[in-house]
Amino acid sequence: MHNFQELVTSFNKGFDTNHFPKSPATLYEPGDYFLSIGGKRIRPVLCLLGNELFNEIHEDAYHLSNAVELFHNFSLVHDDIMDDASLRRGKATIHTKYDPSTALLVGDVMLVRAYEYLQKIQSAHLSKILQLFNTTAKEVCEGQQLDMDYAKKDKVTMDEYIHMITLKTSVLLAASLEMGAIIGGASSANCKHLYEFGKNIGIAFQVQDDYLDAFGDAALFGKEPGGDIKQNKKTFLLIHALEVANKEQKLALENLLKSNQEDKVEKVLAIFKECGIDIWAESSKAKYLKQAFEHLESIAVTNDRIKPLIELANYLMNRNQ
Amino acid sequence: MHNFQELVTSFNKGFDTNHFPKSPATLYEPGDYFLSIGGKRIRPVLCLLGNELFNEIHEDAYHLSNAVELFHNFSLVHDDIMDDASLRRGKATIHTKYDPSTALLVGDVMLVRAYEYLQKIQSAHLSKILQLFNTTAKEVCEGQQLDMDYAKKDKVTMDEYIHMITLKTSVLLAASLEMGAIIGGASSANCKHLYEFGKNIGIAFQVQDDYLDAFGDAALFGKEPGGDIKQNKKTFLLIHALEVANKEQKLALENLLKSNQEDKVEKVLAIFKECGIDIWAESSKAKYLKQAFEHLESIAVTNDRIKPLIELANYLMNRNQ
Repeated sequence: MHNFQELVTSFNKGFDTNHFPKSPATLYEPGDYFLSIGGKRIRPVLCLLGNELFNEIHEDAYHLSNAVELFHNFSLVHDDIMDDASLRRGKATIHTKYDPSTALLVGDVMLVRAYEYLQKIQSAHLSKILQLFNTTAKEVCEGQQLDMDYAKKDKVTMDEYIHMITLKTSVLLAASLEMGAIIGGASSANCKHLYEFGKNIGIAFQVQDDYLDAFGDAALFGKEPGGDIKQNKKTFLLIHALEVANKEQKLALENLLKSNQEDKVEKVLAIFKECGIDIWAESSKAKYLKQAFEHLESIAVTNDRIKPLIELANYLMNRNQ
Repeated sequence: MHNFQELVTSFNKGFDTNHFPKSPATLYEPGDYFLSIGGKRIRPVLCLLGNELFNEIHEDAYHLSNAVELFHNFSLVHDDIMDDASLRRGKATIHTKYDPSTALLVGDVMLVRAYEYLQKIQSAHLSKILQLFNTTAKEVCEGQQLDMDYAKKDKVTMDEYIHMITLKTSVLLAASLEMGAIIGGASSANCKHLYEFGKNIGIAFQVQDDYLDAFGDAALFGKEPGGDIKQNKKTFLLIHALEVANKEQKLALENLLKSNQEDKVEKVLAIFKECGIDIWAESSKAKYLKQAFEHLESIAVTNDRIKPLIELANYLMNRNQ
């Protein structure tokens, strides 16, 4: 059994290499550049954790991990084009450092490279894994589309937001665990519980992310909070605030959304607190965590096997705090 | 045995349906719109022809055909963004009718849908097909990158151009035939001959395309020739002309490339003719066709089985003339 940090090290040992040939350098150098920026490698480690929950880690879980990390990077490269983001993890994004057409093609070949790693998985598991991988890949695209759609919409309901965030973020965490479990030989009931664990952890993580962006401690959070508020981003917090605010608070919020006054963040936060949004966010996060752990407890393995997953959940939930 | 047209009809019967779910409509409607624009469906029919060269058409060849046509459309959608093309087959491109971010995501989900069709292929053939499909997919991306690189370069050699056009166009034709042949149970020697047949037909087709754009009959070609010349596009013709022109002709050509004078097309064509480029293009096309047919003859099947492939080659070579 390995803990989360050991698995990160083990994954990086295989992943920190060039995933592309040398030529044409105009296409593949930008690809290797982006992968070298790094990342927390949470999704590939989830594949390994999913496998080890049921069995010793099989070579195929590393192929799967590479595929999942390449898929994740493909989606980041394309998202950065769509969001016109100039920085990713403090480094220039591909479309900024090179150009948008190159970034588009780099994303495309990264997705194909992901399938090349999947193709190495032994045929007994390949069909199930391809099916889940493809479904998840489509869902991630759907989530990104909905995110763009919602940015233009006046009103987004809580159900719509949760649906979008589940597709955009949670399903890949969930599927990473389940695909690892498939390689580990898990039963389909265990696979489903593990998927639901990952999905709920993902939603809890997003609630926390939205919470920290509003109420986080600047020193611990690593950046000044209030970014989402300045951008009028529809978050768990804003959507819930608009649902529970009284007439006066709602009007004040709507006026603040239209303004760019200096004390906008401060004033929005004051209304959030009046509406009890900070407390609600904590309890909402706790609700999703509870659901996640109930699924984890339903998995038919011994308690010591589950430990690294609990460690991971704690790591994710204490990050940036 | 079926002829080319019968196979187009047979393919379209299965393909002319919605390949995407209804929701989110903002993502999937544009996808179905683009697929409904139509196309000659050459690549999917090559899959069926490749299969039928060796055996009765298996259901898997239709899954493969769908995958190949979706892949082709994915590459068109993304190419249109990169080239900022407003029309495709006379209809608005996705990034024009909707927006570039939607077009980017539609391309992405089309590629994933392609893999969903591949996943249906029986496991005995899946590994070989996935391998060839992935290699080809990367090559098509490489070809597009090289095409963009060459547009910015002062000088492109004939070898570089042939390499680019092979990746951008020919390998998918070749791989479509070979993947079909794999499903038909062909030996690897036969597979390789069929691949080379497709590759050489693809290059011959490109020579012809470049030739018709310069020397084609407007009435038969369907559009005014000279588009490539007006855009200073590096084609087989221009690259060869710059290689064989004498000092005076070369200088005149280079000056014409810098100008936008009204009689530019006429003057470039006059130099092309002086340099014998029209005759060279015909013989170059014949050379690639000869190589293609030599590979076709090396395939160990009876002559009547090869007939539809010869029909197809003739169809491609007489198109637009």
